[in-house]
Amino acid sequence: MPLVLTCPRTSPCHGSTGSWSIWRLQKLPEVPDTETQEPFVHEVRVAWGDCDPAGIAYTGRLPWFALDAINAWWEAHTGGDGWYQLELDRNIGTPFVHLSMDFRAPVTPRHRLMCEVWPSRLGTSSITFSMLGRQAGEVCFEGTFTCVFIIADQFKSQPAPKDLREIIAPLLRSS
Amino acid sequence: MPLVLTCPRTSPCHGSTGSWSIWRLQKLPEVPDTETQEPFVHEVRVAWGDCDPAGIAYTGRLPWFALDAINAWWEAHTGGDGWYQLELDRNIGTPFVHLSMDFRAPVTPRHRLMCEVWPSRLGTSSITFSMLGRQAGEVCFEGTFTCVFIIADQFKSQPAPKDLREIIAPLLRSS
Amino acid sequence: MPLVLTCPRTSPCHGSTGSWSIWRLQKLPEVPDTETQEPFVHEVRVAWGDCDPAGIAYTGRLPWFALDAINAWWEAHTGGDGWYQLELDRNIGTPFVHLSMDFRAPVTPRHRLMCEVWPSRLGTSSITFSMLGRQAGEVCFEGTFTCVFIIADQFKSQPAPKDLREIIAPLLRSS
Amino acid sequence: MPLVLTCPRTSPCHGSTGSWSIWRLQKLPEVPDTETQEPFVHEVRVAWGDCDPAGIAYTGRLPWFALDAINAWWEAHTGGDGWYQLELDRNIGTPFVHLSMDFRAPVTPRHRLMCEVWPSRLGTSSITFSMLGRQAGEVCFEGTFTCVFIIADQFKSQPAPKDLREIIAPLLRSS
Repeated sequence: MPLVLTCPRTSPCHGSTGSWSIWRLQKLPEVPDTETQEPFVHEVRVAWGDCDPAGIAYTGRLPWFALDAINAWWEAHTGGDGWYQLELDRNIGTPFVHLSMDFRAPVTPRHRLMCEVWPSRLGTSSITFSMLGRQAGEVCFEGTFTCVFIIADQFKSQPAPKDLREIIAPLLRSS
Repeated sequence: MPLVLTCPRTSPCHGSTGSWSIWRLQKLPEVPDTETQEPFVHEVRVAWGDCDPAGIAYTGRLPWFALDAINAWWEAHTGGDGWYQLELDRNIGTPFVHLSMDFRAPVTPRHRLMCEVWPSRLGTSSITFSMLGRQAGEVCFEGTFTCVFIIADQFKSQPAPKDLREIIAPLLRSS
Repeated sequence: MPLVLTCPRTSPCHGSTGSWSIWRLQKLPEVPDTETQEPFVHEVRVAWGDCDPAGIAYTGRLPWFALDAINAWWEAHTGGDGWYQLELDRNIGTPFVHLSMDFRAPVTPRHRLMCEVWPSRLGTSSITFSMLGRQAGEVCFEGTFTCVFIIADQFKSQPAPKDLREIIAPLLRSS
Repeated sequence: MPLVLTCPRTSPCHGSTGSWSIWRLQKLPEVPDTETQEPFVHEVRVAWGDCDPAGIAYTGRLPWFALDAINAWWEAHTGGDGWYQLELDRNIGTPFVHLSMDFRAPVTPRHRLMCEVWPSRLGTSSITFSMLGRQAGEVCFEGTFTCVFIIADQFKSQPAPKDLREIIAPLLRSS
């Protein structure tokens, strides 16, 4: 687990025009990756309030960012249904049973955080997402996240709903 | 202080194509408003994890969203310098001395939260921002936020730096 | 709005034995203040992750702490019913319609944050709480917070329930 | 990874007197466990605002709670030095390189969350903490968390400082 040991607070932006311009170039639209064949990437705007006195994003914020990215993955692949709509409109819950993250380099507000998300395993009633979080092209963290499908108002396990399974299956990849 | 009393969890999206399409149409670029003459609007993606068991964004999250919008205002008007860069690169701090918010309608993940921000008062060493938070065109909250300028590493009051004053002054409006 | 301008990151603990011992002495039990005649004080353990790169608690965390204190006030005065139990067990919601805070001095992890909370106004269907947040005896912030009573599952205004009114009324004070 | 599938929102308190009384009984003082021979347990007051629309603590809050517990472990074992004091007063940083959590049962505001923390591995320049989070005696999550020791202002790896090593070593246990 190598931790990149350059001082994150003063590292220059990559490129000559500053983080703002770079962000504009890097920004990827959140459109379904089955159409574009491009990986799905969710962008996070890391801000001052996400950082701790070490000047880097607080570790406790990183799983939160990762979850935001998974929620955005659902939104992008279901016509706008994130966890909120799945639960309230369709009575489908997907609580987490596991998460694991390795932190490779500090996350800072100097660049947008680009979270690449993809489903890496689909069980009968569970789904695992994998994630790479990058800033300016450098991997900051990797993670895996496993959820189970439940009938939301009963908090009871259920198989992955058929329409979701059909969306997920073609996007599965191991790494 | 009228509170809109429709059930926020089930209110339909305005328009026939769902919140996702609406979001695409509503999205405004965050470019300096001196060029465009348009108000500066920061978009917040309200998510499941921002909501409480009442199914609406938790009150404690709303000042956080508002602060994100003010930070984004700084970024958009200074070539990318948010609070992080102002503090670490320029030794300028702007701690808050006051905030006030009125909540008019619940905030939910059904629409992006569009935060209109503008400077409404510029004192010798302080700045007040005003804000309107809207979803699908409806005002969800209003707020005012006052910060003082300090020399960051001394935590000591200072007049508003000249270049920032020149950026802020032409954008001042009372409401 | 005076802001205390000493460097918060290095201010010594008051007393010779460090913040840990001081905390032990300061800790007040959260028992109903009608019995003790003492003000209700909720203690917050400010931590590293609550602080921003300026080394002080991020402004966005302070309304959150304040809300935690109000929730704790409800718990302490209703036999354990915080917002969660009021909503889920009793179908009573108390959404916020207003909050206002003045920040007097930075909040840091060097001392516990002691939030004194009291009801300062009880309307037909609304309640206002006032708050003083202190560290080591010094006022860090003041605030007022107004909520309305609603029938939770209808999101519809209602008068303050009688048993709650009887709990609140004797504790009202203006400042 | 068994997930407990009872509805968390309505599960009765264990015991006849409600969660508030139970909390009083369960509360453990945070004193060094070398003296007491008892495991170190950090208590978290789960609140309304920590919960999502499913009525349980949002997954994104659970790593945050876990980190609070590790910070509290440091405070309790070093005479009050949490991450804040270690970094600012002693120039010792302990950034995370890994975290892993398994979620066994939902966390709710119905009980205090009791986080048992202990060091489970001490490398030359790293430390791993293990954790069990329980509510009303039931395990809600398990986790492991690995940090490296760094010279804070250089963001450069260093061996575990000798005095910290002496505190940690006698408390090591594998499970």
